[in-house]
Amino acid sequence: MFGTLKENELQSNIKISGFHLGKILPAKCEYQNMYLQEKAKLVDKSIPKFVPITHPDGMYYAMRHLLDAGGKRLRPSALLLAAEAVGGRAENVLPAAVALELIHNFTLIHDDIMDEADLRRGIPTVHKKWGVPKAIIAGDALYSKAIEVLSSAKSEPSHIIESIELLSKTCVDLCEGQWMDMDFQDRKDVTEEEYMTMVEKKTAALFAAALKIGAILSGAKRDVSQALWDYGFLAGTGFQIYDDVIDLITPEEILGKAQGGDIIEGKRTLIIINAFSKGVTIDILGKSNATRSEMSAAITALKESGSIDYAINKAISFIEEGKSVLKILPNSEAKKMLIGLADYMIARKY
Amino acid sequence: MFGTLKENELQSNIKISGFHLGKILPAKCEYQNMYLQEKAKLVDKSIPKFVPITHPDGMYYAMRHLLDAGGKRLRPSALLLAAEAVGGRAENVLPAAVALELIHNFTLIHDDIMDEADLRRGIPTVHKKWGVPKAIIAGDALYSKAIEVLSSAKSEPSHIIESIELLSKTCVDLCEGQWMDMDFQDRKDVTEEEYMTMVEKKTAALFAAALKIGAILSGAKRDVSQALWDYGFLAGTGFQIYDDVIDLITPEEILGKAQGGDIIEGKRTLIIINAFSKGVTIDILGKSNATRSEMSAAITALKESGSIDYAINKAISFIEEGKSVLKILPNSEAKKMLIGLADYMIARKY
Repeated sequence: MFGTLKENELQSNIKISGFHLGKILPAKCEYQNMYLQEKAKLVDKSIPKFVPITHPDGMYYAMRHLLDAGGKRLRPSALLLAAEAVGGRAENVLPAAVALELIHNFTLIHDDIMDEADLRRGIPTVHKKWGVPKAIIAGDALYSKAIEVLSSAKSEPSHIIESIELLSKTCVDLCEGQWMDMDFQDRKDVTEEEYMTMVEKKTAALFAAALKIGAILSGAKRDVSQALWDYGFLAGTGFQIYDDVIDLITPEEILGKAQGGDIIEGKRTLIIINAFSKGVTIDILGKSNATRSEMSAAITALKESGSIDYAINKAISFIEEGKSVLKILPNSEAKKMLIGLADYMIARKY
Repeated sequence: MFGTLKENELQSNIKISGFHLGKILPAKCEYQNMYLQEKAKLVDKSIPKFVPITHPDGMYYAMRHLLDAGGKRLRPSALLLAAEAVGGRAENVLPAAVALELIHNFTLIHDDIMDEADLRRGIPTVHKKWGVPKAIIAGDALYSKAIEVLSSAKSEPSHIIESIELLSKTCVDLCEGQWMDMDFQDRKDVTEEEYMTMVEKKTAALFAAALKIGAILSGAKRDVSQALWDYGFLAGTGFQIYDDVIDLITPEEILGKAQGGDIIEGKRTLIIINAFSKGVTIDILGKSNATRSEMSAAITALKESGSIDYAINKAISFIEEGKSVLKILPNSEAKKMLIGLADYMIARKY
C-alpha cells in the first residue's frame, strides 16, 4: 500500500504522457502526498509562530508574503522525514525545518528581483508589491530570522553549531550557483558540466543540507547523516532538472507564472544546452517580448529535438540514484516517505 | 599618557571649532588611534584568509570590493578590545571580529543599492560596478560567509551558539532599522523618538553585539558581557548621530562621497527633525538635482538653526554615558582603549 512508483511505471508514464508526467499519479503515490501534506501543514502552522507580524509591520508582511501564499514545503518536509528516518522526532527539529523554509523563501525574494519576475505562486512577487529596496530588506530579514530560529533549536550545542556551519556554507554555495546562473545568460557556450555545477550549488545543496541537518540534530551517526546529504543532493539535482522541464510544459494557470519563463529570461537550462549541442536555435532566448505563438514554436522545437526527453531521463536517473543511497537506513515509514518524496520530485506538475 | 579626551576639552573643541570637531586631536588620542590601527590591521590581514578569491572569481571580487578599500574596522576592533577587557585573547576571537566586519560590509552593499549611492570609501559602490542583481548576491554571500566564519570560532559550543543567536537577532534589528529609515523618507512628521529607535536598530545594535560577542566568546560573566553590550549600544548611538553631522560638515575629498548626501536622499536625521521642529524648511530635501550652492545654503540654514550643535551635544552625551558603563571592568589597557574608542566616535572626520 505504501510502496513507491516503480521505475518502469514512471518510464512508461513518460513515454505515454509525453510532457505530462505528473498527470497520472497512482493511488499509492497519493497517500504519500497526503503524508507529505501533513508535514507541510506542520510547517505552515509554525511559520506565524516563528515569524509573527510585529513592528515595523510592513517588513513582516513582506517577509510573510510568499510564505503565506503556500509553497510545497519540500525542504522542511525532507528535514522532518530525515529526523524520523534516523529515529528522531519531527517536533524536536521543527525550528530547523522552519529555518530551511525561511532560507528558501529568502532566496526566492532575491532571485525574483534579479530575474525581474512579476509573479510567484500566482501572486505578485515581493519587489513588485513593495519595490526593490524593501524586497532586498525583506529577504535579508528572512535570512536573519532563519539563523536565529535554527540557533534556538533544541539539540546538543555541538549539533546546532554543525548545522549552522553547514547551512551557512550551503548559502555561500547558493550564492555561487546564482552568480554562475547569471553569468551563463551572457554566454552561448555553457557546457553541460558547468550547468550541473550550477544546479548542484543553486538547488541541490540546500536539499542536501536540509536532510543532513534533520539527521545531525537527531544525533545520527556520521555515515548516516552523510548518506542523507547524498540523497538530498541527488534528489535535489533531479528536482531542478525537472523544474526546468516543468517551466516549459506546464500551463500558466497551474504553474502560477508564465510558461517558458526560463526561455524569456535567457536561462541556460540543460534542455537549452542539449538543444544547442544538436544545432537547434531558439530565437526568442532572452527576449522578453516574445509572443505566445513564438513561445509555442520554441517549445515544439525543443520537444522535437528530444532535448526535453533528455532532461527528463537525466532527472529520473538522479532520482533513482538518490533513492538507492537510502539503503543504509533501517526500514521505516519515514524511509518509505523519503523514497516517495524523491519520486514526487519528477511526478509533480508544478 | 594613555588618558582620554576629557569632556570639557571635547566641549571646548566643539565650541571652538564649530563643525570641525575632528580637526584638533590631542597627542594622547593619536596614541589610541595607533593602538586601534593595530587591531584594524589584524582584521585587514585576516580578511583574505577568511574570504579568499575562489570560483566564481567575479563574486569574490565583488564581496572583497569594499572590504579591500579599507574602512575603519570599528566593529571588529571593538570586539577584539572587549575580549581583552574581560581577560580573553584577541587572537582567539579573530574569526568573530572578521565576521562582524563582513556583516557590516554586507549591509553597506545592500544599503548602497537602496540609497542608489554611487560612491563609498572613494570608489564606485558594488552595484555601480557589477549591477544591482550581482550586488545583491555579493551581499548575501558576505552575510553567509560571516555566519560560517563565526560558527568556526574557537570557543565553548554554548558560547558560539549564544553569539550566533545574538548576531542573527541583531541582523533582524538592522533590517527593521533600515526599513524604518526608508519609511521615514516618505514622511514629514518623524519624531525624535522614532528616529532614536531607528538608529538603535540600524547602527547601535551591531556595535553592541560586537562588544558582547567579544565578551561572550572570552567567557565573561553575564553582567560584564551585558555592560559591554550597553557600552556598544550607547557609543554606537552616539556614532550614528555624529555620522549624520559628518555627512553635512565634511568635504567630499575627505568623506569619500558627496557632502550632504543624506539631504539629497531625503533622510530624516536628528538634525533635520530638530530643524523641522524649529520651523526651518530645507527645500532640497530628497532632491537629487540640488546644486552645490543650494546645498551650501541648506547646510548654513541647519547650522544657524542650532540643529547641528543639538545633534553634536546629543552624540556627546551618549558617548559619555557609554564610557561610564565601563566602570564595571577592572582597569586595563583594553578598557582605556574602549574609552578612547568611544571618544573617537565623535572626534573623527569621516
